[in-house]
Amino acid sequence: MTGVVPPVCTPLTPDNEVDVASLERLVDHLVGAGVDGLFVLGSSSEAAYLPDGHRRTVVETVVRHVAGQLPVLAGAIDMASLRVLDHVRAAARAGADGVVVTAPFYTRTHPAEITRHFRLVADRGELPVFAYDLPVSVHSKLDPDLVLELAAEGALAGLKDSSGDEGALRRVILGARARTDVPGFAVLTGSELTVDSALAMGADGVVPGLGNVDPHGYVRLFRYARAGDWERARAEQERLCALFRMVSVGDPLRMGASSAGLGAFKAALHLRGVIDCPLTAAPQVPLSAAETEQVGKHMAAAGLL
Amino acid sequence: MTGVVPPVCTPLTPDNEVDVASLERLVDHLVGAGVDGLFVLGSSSEAAYLPDGHRRTVVETVVRHVAGQLPVLAGAIDMASLRVLDHVRAAARAGADGVVVTAPFYTRTHPAEITRHFRLVADRGELPVFAYDLPVSVHSKLDPDLVLELAAEGALAGLKDSSGDEGALRRVILGARARTDVPGFAVLTGSELTVDSALAMGADGVVPGLGNVDPHGYVRLFRYARAGDWERARAEQERLCALFRMVSVGDPLRMGASSAGLGAFKAALHLRGVIDCPLTAAPQVPLSAAETEQVGKHMAAAGLL
Amino acid sequence: MTGVVPPVCTPLTPDNEVDVASLERLVDHLVGAGVDGLFVLGSSSEAAYLPDGHRRTVVETVVRHVAGQLPVLAGAIDMASLRVLDHVRAAARAGADGVVVTAPFYTRTHPAEITRHFRLVADRGELPVFAYDLPVSVHSKLDPDLVLELAAEGALAGLKDSSGDEGALRRVILGARARTDVPGFAVLTGSELTVDSALAMGADGVVPGLGNVDPHGYVRLFRYARAGDWERARAEQERLCALFRMVSVGDPLRMGASSAGLGAFKAALHLRGVIDCPLTAAPQVPLSAAETEQVGKHMAAAGLL
Amino acid sequence: MTGVVPPVCTPLTPDNEVDVASLERLVDHLVGAGVDGLFVLGSSSEAAYLPDGHRRTVVETVVRHVAGQLPVLAGAIDMASLRVLDHVRAAARAGADGVVVTAPFYTRTHPAEITRHFRLVADRGELPVFAYDLPVSVHSKLDPDLVLELAAEGALAGLKDSSGDEGALRRVILGARARTDVPGFAVLTGSELTVDSALAMGADGVVPGLGNVDPHGYVRLFRYARAGDWERARAEQERLCALFRMVSVGDPLRMGASSAGLGAFKAALHLRGVIDCPLTAAPQVPLSAAETEQVGKHMAAAGLL
Repeated sequence: MTGVVPPVCTPLTPDNEVDVASLERLVDHLVGAGVDGLFVLGSSSEAAYLPDGHRRTVVETVVRHVAGQLPVLAGAIDMASLRVLDHVRAAARAGADGVVVTAPFYTRTHPAEITRHFRLVADRGELPVFAYDLPVSVHSKLDPDLVLELAAEGALAGLKDSSGDEGALRRVILGARARTDVPGFAVLTGSELTVDSALAMGADGVVPGLGNVDPHGYVRLFRYARAGDWERARAEQERLCALFRMVSVGDPLRMGASSAGLGAFKAALHLRGVIDCPLTAAPQVPLSAAETEQVGKHMAAAGLL
Repeated sequence: MTGVVPPVCTPLTPDNEVDVASLERLVDHLVGAGVDGLFVLGSSSEAAYLPDGHRRTVVETVVRHVAGQLPVLAGAIDMASLRVLDHVRAAARAGADGVVVTAPFYTRTHPAEITRHFRLVADRGELPVFAYDLPVSVHSKLDPDLVLELAAEGALAGLKDSSGDEGALRRVILGARARTDVPGFAVLTGSELTVDSALAMGADGVVPGLGNVDPHGYVRLFRYARAGDWERARAEQERLCALFRMVSVGDPLRMGASSAGLGAFKAALHLRGVIDCPLTAAPQVPLSAAETEQVGKHMAAAGLL
Repeated sequence: MTGVVPPVCTPLTPDNEVDVASLERLVDHLVGAGVDGLFVLGSSSEAAYLPDGHRRTVVETVVRHVAGQLPVLAGAIDMASLRVLDHVRAAARAGADGVVVTAPFYTRTHPAEITRHFRLVADRGELPVFAYDLPVSVHSKLDPDLVLELAAEGALAGLKDSSGDEGALRRVILGARARTDVPGFAVLTGSELTVDSALAMGADGVVPGLGNVDPHGYVRLFRYARAGDWERARAEQERLCALFRMVSVGDPLRMGASSAGLGAFKAALHLRGVIDCPLTAAPQVPLSAAETEQVGKHMAAAGLL
Repeated sequence: MTGVVPPVCTPLTPDNEVDVASLERLVDHLVGAGVDGLFVLGSSSEAAYLPDGHRRTVVETVVRHVAGQLPVLAGAIDMASLRVLDHVRAAARAGADGVVVTAPFYTRTHPAEITRHFRLVADRGELPVFAYDLPVSVHSKLDPDLVLELAAEGALAGLKDSSGDEGALRRVILGARARTDVPGFAVLTGSELTVDSALAMGADGVVPGLGNVDPHGYVRLFRYARAGDWERARAEQERLCALFRMVSVGDPLRMGASSAGLGAFKAALHLRGVIDCPLTAAPQVPLSAAETEQVGKHMAAAGLL
């Protein structure tokens, strides 16, 4: 699992159902840009907002539509082990190639319990497990040494790091390189704004939410980095940094950061004609017309409209 | 919904299934002590750890077993509105009398989204909604003014306050008393250690996790308070405060606060012969034999063994 | 150290100097109302904002002005032990009767370091030490067992609890009562809205910021409680709860909670004619004329204007 | 202000006084390695622990000893504006070339108050101000747009970013480059483990705590980066990442992260013969002999002993 693996947005109908046709067009948009894999039911997919029925539809639709061209990872996002295992089973039935799993949340947890959690999900689940390090959501940080220990045990196939802690990310990368017992362990960064840095450090791939909007940009960035052309990689990254500013058009007095950020991505996909409706799932607050216009300006400035 | 409403523990078998016979005995233990209602699938019930199948079994078992003698509230604990609505529907089908719902969690949220969330769950759900204020789990605090506004709209039937913020609790109690548009709004405290204080402030009821272990104690405490015998109420509360120290027997180097606290409650119920197995749900860490012995000493000191 | 011990506001001139004449009038206002002690250089005194010269002026002025009628506690608020010891020495020279000391802050700390800190300040300082439990400022909570252990060693003379954690407060109160080795240990609550509850639990005194504005109210409340007249105590507390709402008149889009809360207290003292200028220290944002008018309405509703 | 600017450790005597001779040797060690400036009284200098007298001695000693060869920045670390201004005056008198100032802390703050704070310190202070972004200590994050606005006003001469938020760091770097009104604004990173990344993004300099221990390493890293030799820069950074692991030798059950991290740096400086005593300031917990031995192993592995 390497390269550009966008966390696929979940297009919705105006009444909050999964818009299957739009989802297929979004998959085509991403695959056509040359991405290397797809990650469904992550944060950018609004997994936290989607009922199990929606989640099932998403995985089935995407797996069917990519038809084996690319690997598909599915988030198995829930509060603790037994609930996560239900999602892992559903993902396996739907044909996903791996699952992405956070530490327990909502409940107060402990390093020993996080360890037990990942071991249990790996032991009883039927798919390779990628740890999802997302302190902003789960309010605990995965320890680099724990990640490597679980990797060495075979409990983890990789790490999707959205912690924003680049020093800790580097510890995992360097630790995995130094050890002989974690071959093939994949380290993916979820930080849209420092992909060139992460790749220079040795990360295997990137999972950028903004990659929904501009997959070609991230594919170019990855290729430049792999070719060692750091100057072009940096220029591409800086263009994407400017584009990313769209996540701030939503008025923070009216809405939270999820409504604003995912609302902007979906508005952009709508403006590009990829999806039919820019709605984010309840109870998120929609962007206003003026805010959507601002998204359009960011798109135009980046050469995407 | 007033009086003592214990959040019912969920007895498990050694392989993490719901132990229906033990659950029925626990219900008998509580009802026999004279409690006024039951709250299933809250934090003390390990709702975060229980898959949907387990949750269904719990509500069905308890509703069937109490057979209308007492009202049964069910937690509908999930990350956002559409997922919560699935749980509300399941609770309604199983015959619960009301649901208990937190603010959105895992995702970054906003007061406007919390408001939309409760309105949506109240509008589309089929049961009265009690707001569950639990910042330690959801990382946001419900604003007293918002709670009262939602109550006046008819979106909320009550509040289960486990925030530990007694000043804010008092604002809701005094606000509800001062308004004419929130008749019957029920304010319940989840703080085991300050029940006498909350009742003196005017709270309608209490939802003490420790009430699983010693329901008679909380029933006495409530009756003393209602009779205005604050001295006896305080003495009873102080006895319960000493008993509560059992939540600290679990070694914090080996386990988190949930494992320790719920593990102690279940160990106590096991020692009293109410439930067959003291196990807490995965990935929680079990108490050791020595720790369980300490629980027994707390029980004995409180006159319960 | 028992009874009502208001944390004395620090009146300032328009150019942010200590207004000594206003401070003396404020002390007269408090002493005249029958308070039992004074606490200078706490949070309500804006200690965090005051340079050492201002701090010295405050302690000297108040000690001189009360002239031994009442005990005077002084905050020794700083980041770590050696800095705190400098403040303790200054407070001793100025004639204070005790100091109030928080856990270390700004730096990352640890329970073992908090313990060393209090021992060191007690050993090397020349005044009795009251622990100041203020997690909102120092981002750690004092453990009740640690507080009692330090009390038993003689390192602490009392606790000023502004943690808002009434369960933990009760653990200290009950623990101090149960032990024979902490005679005279004073437990004071800083929570304005639950003074009746804290006194019913057994607290020795109260340190209410709102006591600057309405010291007579808190003196009455304390006397009712000591007389066992809990009904009148509750009624007085509820009147004070309504008055406390003044801390919310400041627009949260324009200012923080300190500017709003202390700004309201100072506006109220200015409206009552006690202090000459309602300014809070830089960089706090002043209340607008309309916000000040709202403060006046709260005062009038409470019968204070 | 560009290049390698180590935050100078503060050597202490066994009784917690500033060890002037060791401090001078440490300055020689750093200047001799070719660093570009010195930053005293930052976090690595234990500024939070040092009384004003110690702080004055540190600035005077270092300014006198470098004698104008290099610029010297001094931290002016305190809770709010007027207290910070006292430190700025002291730093100016002692001959520092600039001051480093955080957002207000301890007190609850607000973006509007943070803005007023920096304007006030810049207006009334006599030295160029560098903003110190250190959320781990002050519990608020500086907004990149605010930093650039203050830079454009002339209130800020630079930013010392220790937030660990590389995306926000990049926003400041790209924003400063895009604007014509912030010439000479210096962006320095405090993140020891991602210096190559920060320099590739366009940062002007680095302020690595580990630079006390191995200044030659950071000087080489900076030179490789400036020469565009990213491969050598990365190799040097990776060597320093391994060396940095010394901050974890201290037992987290016995001490906090400051005791462990600064204790390791001082142990290393002691082992290298630069300072006489490895003690960290009270109430920090010293490393044990076994832990110090581990520091030595990290030094040896990095080729420093």
